Amino acid sequence: MAFVNENFLKLKQSYLFAEVAKLAAAFKAANPDKKVISLGIGDVTLPLPQACIEAMHKAVDDMADSKTFVGYGPYEGFDFLVSAIAKNDFALQGIDISVGEIFVSDGAKSDTGNIGDIFATNNIVAITDPVYPVYNDTNIMAGREVKIIPCGEETGFAPVPPDFHADIVYLCSPNNPTGSVIKKDLLKAWVDYAIKNEAIILYDAAYEKFICEDDVPHSIYEIEGAKSCAIEFRSFSKTAGFTGTRCGYSVIPKGLTAKTRGGEKADLNKIWYRRQSTKYNGTSYIIQRGAAAVYTPQGQEQIKATIGYYLENARIIREAVTAAGLECSGGVNAPYIWLKCPNGMTSWEFYDELLNRCAIVGTPGSGFGEMGEGFFRLTSFGSREDTLEAVERIKKAF
Amino acid sequence: MAFVNENFLKLKQSYLFAEVAKLAAAFKAANPDKKVISLGIGDVTLPLPQACIEAMHKAVDDMADSKTFVGYGPYEGFDFLVSAIAKNDFALQGIDISVGEIFVSDGAKSDTGNIGDIFATNNIVAITDPVYPVYNDTNIMAGREVKIIPCGEETGFAPVPPDFHADIVYLCSPNNPTGSVIKKDLLKAWVDYAIKNEAIILYDAAYEKFICEDDVPHSIYEIEGAKSCAIEFRSFSKTAGFTGTRCGYSVIPKGLTAKTRGGEKADLNKIWYRRQSTKYNGTSYIIQRGAAAVYTPQGQEQIKATIGYYLENARIIREAVTAAGLECSGGVNAPYIWLKCPNGMTSWEFYDELLNRCAIVGTPGSGFGEMGEGFFRLTSFGSREDTLEAVERIKKAF
Repeated sequence: MAFVNENFLKLKQSYLFAEVAKLAAAFKAANPDKKVISLGIGDVTLPLPQACIEAMHKAVDDMADSKTFVGYGPYEGFDFLVSAIAKNDFALQGIDISVGEIFVSDGAKSDTGNIGDIFATNNIVAITDPVYPVYNDTNIMAGREVKIIPCGEETGFAPVPPDFHADIVYLCSPNNPTGSVIKKDLLKAWVDYAIKNEAIILYDAAYEKFICEDDVPHSIYEIEGAKSCAIEFRSFSKTAGFTGTRCGYSVIPKGLTAKTRGGEKADLNKIWYRRQSTKYNGTSYIIQRGAAAVYTPQGQEQIKATIGYYLENARIIREAVTAAGLECSGGVNAPYIWLKCPNGMTSWEFYDELLNRCAIVGTPGSGFGEMGEGFFRLTSFGSREDTLEAVERIKKAF
Repeated sequence: MAFVNENFLKLKQSYLFAEVAKLAAAFKAANPDKKVISLGIGDVTLPLPQACIEAMHKAVDDMADSKTFVGYGPYEGFDFLVSAIAKNDFALQGIDISVGEIFVSDGAKSDTGNIGDIFATNNIVAITDPVYPVYNDTNIMAGREVKIIPCGEETGFAPVPPDFHADIVYLCSPNNPTGSVIKKDLLKAWVDYAIKNEAIILYDAAYEKFICEDDVPHSIYEIEGAKSCAIEFRSFSKTAGFTGTRCGYSVIPKGLTAKTRGGEKADLNKIWYRRQSTKYNGTSYIIQRGAAAVYTPQGQEQIKATIGYYLENARIIREAVTAAGLECSGGVNAPYIWLKCPNGMTSWEFYDELLNRCAIVGTPGSGFGEMGEGFFRLTSFGSREDTLEAVERIKKAF
């Protein structure tokens, strides 16, 4: 008799985005004359950088000729991409991360989900609340105990090291959903916590390219000691519009270890390589060529323009919402604006209010955890035109 | 203190292909005048079908314009691909599998590796020997007990249902590495075994398109009752040359269940969807467009030509090897020829012999399991020119 992994049955049937979409669709059906604007979804809308388009056309052509055809690639990614990452994202930033420590994947969601494979089930895992649901759900699936680090208004939604022990900690900066960041001093406190607890920090830096302010680290490896206690995840999804194109990478420093129950040290870089080489056959050559083009001078200019566009949307939303008398945070180093629901409304009450009064769809904060109740996420990934129209409606209604 | 998944430490540090490559490189260095021909690697060499190339160029262009840009896609795959699979691979073949039962992925290796996530660790898993190492290694990683079904000469290397109980059985037909197939009667015996044991068959049909003979099922769902006990894996890697392009799919029939320890049934189709939606963000839009083009009339013609080319290589190798007085099997419905090492040689002794006498690289059968000792895998994925030259050398040497 085949037995199911019963941990799956413990998961909340969290249909947050499905519920959001269903209610929005019902509203549209009832109000066919109104133009509904979505500031809810965390998906990009601008096209890929032209440098990526050209590189992928060329890569497709490589596949059309047996002289340039590419079959199975290296499990950790092609050298042309890994080297470009090592140089541009680390060496040129003064960060000591090199090619053997970088593993290209099809995205940070896969990596933050799959990384659990290499850890024992008896680890105590800490996640923030509110949180990107993948961290929680994948640990529930694996049967691990998950402890919560509440991130509320008093810390500007930033996570503060708790007084309890954890073996593995997930941090996300710039944060989805709150748009908050972990500044240098706080990140140092986290590295200290990890070293003291012999814990591993799983650092999700998917929104790193949105950082504008000086005292916000772009990588956890800017903090001394982090190479002995941290894995970092990066993504091309929000950096270069790869949400439907799919590429990301993980950094697992050489020498980073976890322990056996007997107290022996095991090398996580080697174990992740074994995991990837056994369960993954590498990211598509065509897509890796596209990702590598992000690091060309043209690619860098183009992603700067795109991210600038989204950050300008964020500024427009932030200022308009504030002018309308609503409290909000985020949207400075991140594409997300975290709104406090007015008049003590719950997240879902404000969802209804915003939909009915302004025909705007957003995401209820309570969908990201209990601490998100009473908050609301708006995103800056829409078009400028929609964003401007949306804020006009908000200004009039509130 | 973060604990490692110690199951990884139980894995054999199996450097089969690395060892093969290392010895071949040493031989090349010592014999710079000799042209070494590889019949060892299971990777394709012919370019992608022109239909796929054109579809991917168009898809790249879609990504260049915000009007046609594609962000996050459905976790289970875009409807244009899922529908094409359902129609061509199943409906038109008279097999009752529909869109909600198909999950597009980045390849059969990922799927056969990740599928373990949805099963409990207490399942008894049966694998064949010789075997594609992923089935064994991913179960060791998960801490499951693995039992062996020996597949030797007496059954033509086909797996016969054992007299022991298993909860999960991995079958691969056409087989990597032996090139053997599971014919209709035998596959029916396996479905009967699974139903009697309430087991699940994980059926890897990655080489399905190489099937030429009538009595070899293309899908396990051709067997009555299989929808209640089997998951099937397919791949575009060998079908359409996607080894470096990456696309495959899994079929999990609706109504297929596994049990909780309390005896309740859990729906595996829904649980796999939960797994994929939580740990995977879908296969690249560009790649899915390429895969869908395989099902156009042009695509079908083009893959037929490519597979025909490889099968003709297989025939050439098979006949030449036989003419040289060596025993072999496979290579009829599969790209692999499974050679019996002459004169009682071990797999590695024959590796040396073939390399030193003919400058040909192959893969020692013992690398695929104990039952592979004394056997040797040759592949038909080389160029026609190399294949012809290789068999000339074999004819002269043996």
